[in-house]
Amino acid sequence: MKLQKIIFAAAACLALSTSAYAQFQNAEKAVDYRQSVMTVINTHFARIGAVVKGEAPYNKDEVAKNAAVVAMLSTLPWQAFGPGYEGGKAQSDVWSDSAKFKAASEKMQLAAANLNTAAQSGDLESVKKAFGATGQTCKGCHDDFKKK
Amino acid sequence: MKLQKIIFAAAACLALSTSAYAQFQNAEKAVDYRQSVMTVINTHFARIGAVVKGEAPYNKDEVAKNAAVVAMLSTLPWQAFGPGYEGGKAQSDVWSDSAKFKAASEKMQLAAANLNTAAQSGDLESVKKAFGATGQTCKGCHDDFKKK
Repeated sequence: MKLQKIIFAAAACLALSTSAYAQFQNAEKAVDYRQSVMTVINTHFARIGAVVKGEAPYNKDEVAKNAAVVAMLSTLPWQAFGPGYEGGKAQSDVWSDSAKFKAASEKMQLAAANLNTAAQSGDLESVKKAFGATGQTCKGCHDDFKKK
Repeated sequence: MKLQKIIFAAAACLALSTSAYAQFQNAEKAVDYRQSVMTVINTHFARIGAVVKGEAPYNKDEVAKNAAVVAMLSTLPWQAFGPGYEGGKAQSDVWSDSAKFKAASEKMQLAAANLNTAAQSGDLESVKKAFGATGQTCKGCHDDFKKK
């Protein structure tokens, strides 16, 4: 795969809107999809966390790769929280207060993008700050919208 | 997020090697991760399939986005099939015949990249061919390595 093609494809992917092609057969499929996206995000975010906490050595390339995965996947789960997709670990507030939920999802996507920028720069102090800020957006949204 | 940064990040993500940062706490986590990746791949692949089968109208941008997601995620699950991560729906042959499994995984990644190239081109006939070829690599690998 040529670099040009890779970049083109990747840019197209990152330009994903959250509503352009949101279609699930039923709520169960939507729940499974969004939980799967979150599992992948969580895996790669935790790998950065291990570095931030000093539990793993800092390797710039690995942190950059993990952050890129997180940033990209951060755009995907929201389409699976549409009308009719209630259930799973999501509070009903996701649907009854969808404007607040949308705002929270946008905060997380922005924070993940900033984390990615920091990770690509290779400055560990910036990564630490951006990691903390991203974690706050995860926690904030989970506090309000995820079942305990 | 500036386009330059997005492209840089995305290119970095796509350059992921399958072994550079493969670390899971235990087999259960690895199984959960790879099944999650497969769920996301399957969701976006099926959306292309609906277009190929004529069940959904052809929208170039949507097919291109779905193919980009599939191509990117196609690079991720393999790290979770490493030594000690046996279980889930994977046959033991994944580990006892790892060279064959690796070859199958590389075929799938190449086919997904080709599908993405076809999808970006906007030529539906090419998409149909590449979709079929990709599906064959999924089926081939599942026939040999996935529990029935």
